[in-house]
Amino acid sequence: MAKVFSFDDIMKLPGRYRANLINKVSGFKAANLIGTKSKDGQTNMAVFNSVMHIGANPPYLGFILRPTTVERHTYENIKETGVYTINQITTAIHEKAHQTSAKYEREVSEFDAVGLTEFYQDDFHAPFVAESYIKIGLSFQEEQLIHCNDTRLVIGKIEHLILPEEAILEDGDVRLEDLDTAAIAGLYNYYKPEHLGKYGYAKPE
Amino acid sequence: MAKVFSFDDIMKLPGRYRANLINKVSGFKAANLIGTKSKDGQTNMAVFNSVMHIGANPPYLGFILRPTTVERHTYENIKETGVYTINQITTAIHEKAHQTSAKYEREVSEFDAVGLTEFYQDDFHAPFVAESYIKIGLSFQEEQLIHCNDTRLVIGKIEHLILPEEAILEDGDVRLEDLDTAAIAGLYNYYKPEHLGKYGYAKPE
Repeated sequence: MAKVFSFDDIMKLPGRYRANLINKVSGFKAANLIGTKSKDGQTNMAVFNSVMHIGANPPYLGFILRPTTVERHTYENIKETGVYTINQITTAIHEKAHQTSAKYEREVSEFDAVGLTEFYQDDFHAPFVAESYIKIGLSFQEEQLIHCNDTRLVIGKIEHLILPEEAILEDGDVRLEDLDTAAIAGLYNYYKPEHLGKYGYAKPE
Repeated sequence: MAKVFSFDDIMKLPGRYRANLINKVSGFKAANLIGTKSKDGQTNMAVFNSVMHIGANPPYLGFILRPTTVERHTYENIKETGVYTINQITTAIHEKAHQTSAKYEREVSEFDAVGLTEFYQDDFHAPFVAESYIKIGLSFQEEQLIHCNDTRLVIGKIEHLILPEEAILEDGDVRLEDLDTAAIAGLYNYYKPEHLGKYGYAKPE
């Protein structure tokens, strides 16, 4: 039996119910940890389900930043230092990764609080997550304020990309399932995707 | 063995290799079909792997639009009529969905070309995909030009949300795996996510 919600129906739903429902209907989301470090050396890490591909040439990734306490620490550090890391959440660390969404005080490092390990590449200021097979260091590139609800699209340029060499196929493709990559749905649900198929560049006929 | 790419290394990669690599490193993506219809009645449907949650209150979804032929038909129809649909790709239809990425002529409807069925809700102008369990009708709300690479973030307001009533849990959550929902990685790989766990709102300790 199909349930049909109009815009007005959605607006009348209880807040938590609406948040759960609307966060689900767009489908599965990327599961990443964003790592930052303030100028005075305080590290921070938070789970984000909104990391997206913006372009490959040059290589840009984006994420949506909401005006919450947890995400604000990330934003402040990015604006202060210009750099951050995006680190793949594996199924092995997904419970620790989710725990980073708790509202820790600014002087608490989520690396210590949840038991994940800082990793540094050359002199890049921001901490990577050692347990992530895919580690990406970015420099802040651009942000767009989304007027309809005051969230922000934050875009960074890939400065460092670190991943296991054996996971890269001849055509540059990466088998995410061989790297234990998790996915998220909504705010609280974690998944392990099973491969269905790889298809060519589609052509008419 | 870790492979480390700097920005300069990435820029020197062959184009297709770079596109495959960079499209993978952000993680899994939502799998959706966007349906539109021109003022003169020509329907269009295209696969998008960039649909994202923007906000629940009010309910907004976004997607990234690249300046390609395939995506341009979608964009032209949205600007012409103000409405479009976002429809969940199930594992059952994922091969047909992928085929919509082929460059069909404007006067070919991808619904006919790949064998999916138009569905209409009330007098909403844009066609939904009958085979999708989750069907969302949106009105154009806002767009942001991303300056670093001339792509666009297109945001719509949810006007209609249609999904099976029995899939909605008491708290508004939707078990995507019970609705056969597929995920995408990169441009060509499709997945069926298996549920790992649902966690509460995280708190320190």
